[in-house]
Amino acid sequence: MATNRKLRKISDSTIHRLSIYYRALLALEKEGYDTISSKELAKREKLTPAQVRKDLSFFGSFGTRGLGYPVKQLMQEIAEILGINRAWNVALIGVGNVGSALVSYKEFAKQGFVIRLIFDNDQRKIGSNHKGIIVSDVADMASLIPEHNISIAVITVPGSAAQKVCDGVIESGVRAILNFAPVNLRVPNDVFLRNENMAIELEHLSFSLRNQEPMIAE
Amino acid sequence: MATNRKLRKISDSTIHRLSIYYRALLALEKEGYDTISSKELAKREKLTPAQVRKDLSFFGSFGTRGLGYPVKQLMQEIAEILGINRAWNVALIGVGNVGSALVSYKEFAKQGFVIRLIFDNDQRKIGSNHKGIIVSDVADMASLIPEHNISIAVITVPGSAAQKVCDGVIESGVRAILNFAPVNLRVPNDVFLRNENMAIELEHLSFSLRNQEPMIAE
Repeated sequence: MATNRKLRKISDSTIHRLSIYYRALLALEKEGYDTISSKELAKREKLTPAQVRKDLSFFGSFGTRGLGYPVKQLMQEIAEILGINRAWNVALIGVGNVGSALVSYKEFAKQGFVIRLIFDNDQRKIGSNHKGIIVSDVADMASLIPEHNISIAVITVPGSAAQKVCDGVIESGVRAILNFAPVNLRVPNDVFLRNENMAIELEHLSFSLRNQEPMIAE
Repeated sequence: MATNRKLRKISDSTIHRLSIYYRALLALEKEGYDTISSKELAKREKLTPAQVRKDLSFFGSFGTRGLGYPVKQLMQEIAEILGINRAWNVALIGVGNVGSALVSYKEFAKQGFVIRLIFDNDQRKIGSNHKGIIVSDVADMASLIPEHNISIAVITVPGSAAQKVCDGVIESGVRAILNFAPVNLRVPNDVFLRNENMAIELEHLSFSLRNQEPMIAE
């Protein structure tokens, strides 16, 4: 890496914005747009045109000055780089409130994240049917996860159980984990971990309300 | 603003990282740390020390070279700027799967976001009890929201109903909205809107899995 200064890491913020652009482009396509300028895209998402142009420069220079970016092509390029131009098999562990909501959450399947397995350790839940999937016993993760070619695990168990479940899915071969439990999970370096905390978006709002003019001294 | 170049906007990404630091500091305090260096904080959150120092420079220069930042004080400063050193009254509209999960989601109350009102338009749900809150009729938003001093509305209705609900909460005086519906809501300029899309974190994971070495040519 150090040998090629032209290579750079895509930051988390950029990946996040790519997801945002992708959704904006989906909407634009539905609205009948063939092309979109960085200025319009920036306005829709409350970003600066310079930021949009910088982010999209990752994809080479196929935006045409004066004409903008071709909506469909840009969407496909972003989908490819985000890895959502294909399906991923997902296992969900824990069907409490959050888990149940996620099983019904249509945005997952829409982006290619298909829940194939659901696990719980509650005997009353094991064997029950959630949207066509029979809940399995967590004790069977080690055999079922490789059998179903699971790439991503979504952990929606209580905080106290999360690390044990996390260790279990990793032992079963999973290398990408989305954690909803309110704890810091320890994972090996070759495992990708993201934490979903739904309170964080509320903190953006409380920040905005508190700082009506969101400016502070540098 | 233009008259004072020392003032700058805090970016969304910075606000997001402040939330992340806040959580890291909470954990550090529990673990018994009194101070933390930018290097350690960066390592925990997989950021660069330079990024951490830059973000925390917003709070003046109270980190001491060699000693690091005082954990408790930094936590309080971040809580204050994020507006989470106080309670906010929240109304939740729509008690389907996601809404029900959020009513039980302890992280909200922990950060001072207290759900005071729950609305639905389903006669079977109106009057039912969710964690001690009786579900109200959406038709009563205009009177109940100001009565209960609601600052933030969380919208968890289907996409097709979201804009109407959004217009309603704004008419009732709410100026901050967290939207879980998979649609782009239109709001006036003086209303703060954030969209929660739980698939976006999964897209970070699919990106990582797809680009095992997350490097691309600049």
